[in-house]
Amino acid sequence: MRMYDLILKKRNKKEFTKEEIYYIVNSYVKNRIPSYQMAALLMCIYFQGMSKKETIYLTEAMLKSEDVLDLKDIDKPKADKHSTGGVGDGVSLSLAPLLASFEVVVPMMSGRSLGHTGGTLDKLESIEGFNVYLTKSKIKKQLKKIGVAIFATTKDMVVADKKIYALRDLTATVESIPLISASIMSKKLAESLDALLLDVKTGNGAFMEKFSSALELAKTLVEIGKHFNLNVSALITDMNQPLGEYIGNSLEVYQAIKILKNEGPKDITELVILQTSKILQLLKIEKDPNIATQKVIKHLSAGYGLEKFKQLIEAQNGNPKIIDNPKFLPQAKYKTAILAEKAGYITKINTKLIGLSLAKLGTGREKLTDKIDHTVGIKILKKLNQFVEKQEPLMYVYYNNKNKFEEFKKSIISAFLISENKPDKIYPLVYKEIK
Amino acid sequence: MRMYDLILKKRNKKEFTKEEIYYIVNSYVKNRIPSYQMAALLMCIYFQGMSKKETIYLTEAMLKSEDVLDLKDIDKPKADKHSTGGVGDGVSLSLAPLLASFEVVVPMMSGRSLGHTGGTLDKLESIEGFNVYLTKSKIKKQLKKIGVAIFATTKDMVVADKKIYALRDLTATVESIPLISASIMSKKLAESLDALLLDVKTGNGAFMEKFSSALELAKTLVEIGKHFNLNVSALITDMNQPLGEYIGNSLEVYQAIKILKNEGPKDITELVILQTSKILQLLKIEKDPNIATQKVIKHLSAGYGLEKFKQLIEAQNGNPKIIDNPKFLPQAKYKTAILAEKAGYITKINTKLIGLSLAKLGTGREKLTDKIDHTVGIKILKKLNQFVEKQEPLMYVYYNNKNKFEEFKKSIISAFLISENKPDKIYPLVYKEIK
Repeated sequence: MRMYDLILKKRNKKEFTKEEIYYIVNSYVKNRIPSYQMAALLMCIYFQGMSKKETIYLTEAMLKSEDVLDLKDIDKPKADKHSTGGVGDGVSLSLAPLLASFEVVVPMMSGRSLGHTGGTLDKLESIEGFNVYLTKSKIKKQLKKIGVAIFATTKDMVVADKKIYALRDLTATVESIPLISASIMSKKLAESLDALLLDVKTGNGAFMEKFSSALELAKTLVEIGKHFNLNVSALITDMNQPLGEYIGNSLEVYQAIKILKNEGPKDITELVILQTSKILQLLKIEKDPNIATQKVIKHLSAGYGLEKFKQLIEAQNGNPKIIDNPKFLPQAKYKTAILAEKAGYITKINTKLIGLSLAKLGTGREKLTDKIDHTVGIKILKKLNQFVEKQEPLMYVYYNNKNKFEEFKKSIISAFLISENKPDKIYPLVYKEIK
Repeated sequence: MRMYDLILKKRNKKEFTKEEIYYIVNSYVKNRIPSYQMAALLMCIYFQGMSKKETIYLTEAMLKSEDVLDLKDIDKPKADKHSTGGVGDGVSLSLAPLLASFEVVVPMMSGRSLGHTGGTLDKLESIEGFNVYLTKSKIKKQLKKIGVAIFATTKDMVVADKKIYALRDLTATVESIPLISASIMSKKLAESLDALLLDVKTGNGAFMEKFSSALELAKTLVEIGKHFNLNVSALITDMNQPLGEYIGNSLEVYQAIKILKNEGPKDITELVILQTSKILQLLKIEKDPNIATQKVIKHLSAGYGLEKFKQLIEAQNGNPKIIDNPKFLPQAKYKTAILAEKAGYITKINTKLIGLSLAKLGTGREKLTDKIDHTVGIKILKKLNQFVEKQEPLMYVYYNNKNKFEEFKKSIISAFLISENKPDKIYPLVYKEIK
């Protein structure tokens, strides 16, 4: 097999065999294919796509090239959820411990902030001492003991995905549904799950802006999951405005504690409950949707999830005092309101711009080597379709650098479209479920 | 400027500015862009194309990144021709000296055999002692003295093209009209010409199999040439069967001598005369097409071209005795006829297959590092629309390796389609001229 011929094949929109896809993945991981040939192939895949069959083979080849987390000796149902990413999507922080409070094992391999989206690992690292770099044996031990662990990929896991993703990120080949699907699913399958809930975001703050793309991605992900005998389902949810009230690293941890006390903002709390309930249904712990949801709400009200979060923080060396006293979370020096420049209804929110502006203020990074300011963020006070008076606060901004704040202020104001007429477009939290 | 953003721009079918194209070419030549990003960009160009403007900027940027052959102090008209390549296309061997016999300076930078096509340099190297590696000062000296030189690219010439072409060749991005055009024209413009004749081949033995692609390429090449104030014209010519009678390296030199004596095969001799005549017209040495052609024929009959060929061979250290006695050309050990398996009309010839089979027999190479056998080749006896009896020879094969011959025989027989009905399709030598 010659890589040249394989590039030509995909360039001419032909379908790869299983052997060809294994050859590509294995040879690339072993440095037997130069990155310029791999880059050319990835661009062909961007333009010509991949069939469902090819995408499944790709996922499988990537999965097999790496070391999976072997959880066979933990005799409990295992589940996880994955979100395609958005602004203010801190669902994982509360969902993971909440789910674990149902005796479900949650081996949550997570990522970092990149571009306009946040990352679970960065958020957790705003807790003093919290360690996301766990060895495999530590992960297993912790899962056996408390049922939940949130950690960075280890060196020997998802090697194919890491190497291919790094190249895609440099060659503008990230936005390809088969490549995104194989990347997500090879990582999640490496966690040895019984059930997986996928949260595919759509809207102006999502990677899949268009609903049709989100739908295609959701279908592909579910199809791959089923092929690997996973109990899987995907929710297509809205990202035309930030989720929840707080956006930022320590601020989202603060909000997660509120959610776990059932005192969180309506939208994100609803999503945490819905997703947890769905996973209980996928695992057949509770088949009836209404009863499942009632049980989840009960766990919130009773503080079972919060107790599990405390155990998680303790297990990973974080300061558990934050649970009872948020003052132990790091805080920014300054807090300033951004005021509406005119009265009217919030008709549109440029969510991606909010994410990018926040990243510049310090919540995120442009390159993986950039440093993050855990204390920076916003509390949004007005969301879509709400009325705002002239000079009424749209949000509070938490920050440390006054120059950066001035820059932020300019761009954030342009993210809100305020008009006199009451808008009639409604943005539901969840658009569709793909099973 | 970031290469990532430029890849994204072309991926999304946007037009590059002049500055962006210069940035890409210069940065790549200076190793400031990694080859994987360049490969991704080339594949985007393959899929999304380039406007005429972009193609001109690309040609210009490539041309400026390199050292041109400065021929200002030679006060004579300078001209060259370029063929997109085919099987048996040895036109350059006789055209260059023939043209020089008109006091036209011909600085012919040539290439080598690759894939199914032959290369002028390899053909000339079948002449004992012939040296194609000339320094710039040697080229200029020779052009001043005898008006013609055929040589390989020097180290400091066409560096951008060499580096970009090498990457295209490994990443299946050769077949792109803007990239082909910029590559050809940046090389030819580096020769400091007054006139250029382009021979764009079309048919089953050409890179541009489809007429529409050949037409697009021809138009692009002519447009670029005009932009750079070149007197330029393109002929779209047939490559649905090999050109001439002989294919192979020393065999095509042998044939060139026959052509220069006006004793060559009809088709290739006609093409040599036509192309030389066209160049005389482009240079306004003779504006009337009929008179120009008559003059060319006169130069053949009088042996002026042959005399110039002898001077060329002597100037580049080759053995000039081959002119008067072809026995001094290297010859293969064996000569065997390939016989028709049935009687009928030759309805189709798979020209590319002939080229590839010959390359395997030794005339060409798969990789640039492969060795060539200069003596190997064929003499074709039957061409399209001709009748052949059962067991009548289709061709003679000249070879040294009996095992390779057996393999060759099998594939070459399948290159000829013989049918009972007299075919009515006529293949003209020249389809169209683009001015």
